Amino acid sequence: MAYDQENIFAKILRGEIPAHKIYEDEHTYAFLDVFPQTKGHALVIPKTPSENILTAEPETLGVLMITVQKICRAAMEAFQADGITLQQFNQPAGGQTVFHTHVHILPRFNDVPLGSHNGNMEVNEILIEMAEAYKAVLSK
Amino acid sequence: MAYDQENIFAKILRGEIPAHKIYEDEHTYAFLDVFPQTKGHALVIPKTPSENILTAEPETLGVLMITVQKICRAAMEAFQADGITLQQFNQPAGGQTVFHTHVHILPRFNDVPLGSHNGNMEVNEILIEMAEAYKAVLSK
Repeated sequence: MAYDQENIFAKILRGEIPAHKIYEDEHTYAFLDVFPQTKGHALVIPKTPSENILTAEPETLGVLMITVQKICRAAMEAFQADGITLQQFNQPAGGQTVFHTHVHILPRFNDVPLGSHNGNMEVNEILIEMAEAYKAVLSK
Repeated sequence: MAYDQENIFAKILRGEIPAHKIYEDEHTYAFLDVFPQTKGHALVIPKTPSENILTAEPETLGVLMITVQKICRAAMEAFQADGITLQQFNQPAGGQTVFHTHVHILPRFNDVPLGSHNGNMEVNEILIEMAEAYKAVLSK
């Protein structure tokens, strides 16, 4: 499958549609999932186009994971999380719905099951609050 | 939490308990999950000790993901999978039960939901068959 320049994450990277950005560096971009399954549910994507982990360049995965780790640590502090679940989906059978490589960062809390990804879009004020919580930690 | 040298993956790395190994290189080791949630359910671990992604060295994550990609691609071919789901758990609240950094590679098939991780241990003959399928592709 060829990379589709019109996928939603490509549009976010080009600034064509808004996102609740929490972090950005030369190689990666992190923002909130607007259908959060947990408090602080974030996505990390590489800036280099690739559909998923099956076709990404190995170097892309390396820089991606450095940012993933950074966001995981920030989530633990920002939300006083008890743990983190990472999910990464490849191809529709693997759960992928947006065809730009991405990692889901799901802050977890003791005795709180993972929510559904099929809920309603989170209200903007809550998303802004979560993004600010991340940025306060990440800007230290 | 300090790294526990007696965790089951540390014992596998030291050869103290057996595993259905599918791949090994200088930095990483890949083997089958004996409680497979899908056909070809594999685990990739770094050889360098770390509890999870929160405390692993960034370089460890880089080499880990290179092997994860290798195993994902092999799984697609070996099992004619339609996709791959990756899961990675950090701390008990995040789903972690073995405290050595690891990534779950779950080959996925159209219209087949992910199985439970609480089932019975897979029979040895099936595990051997799955490991051989991986190795046949990885040795090419």
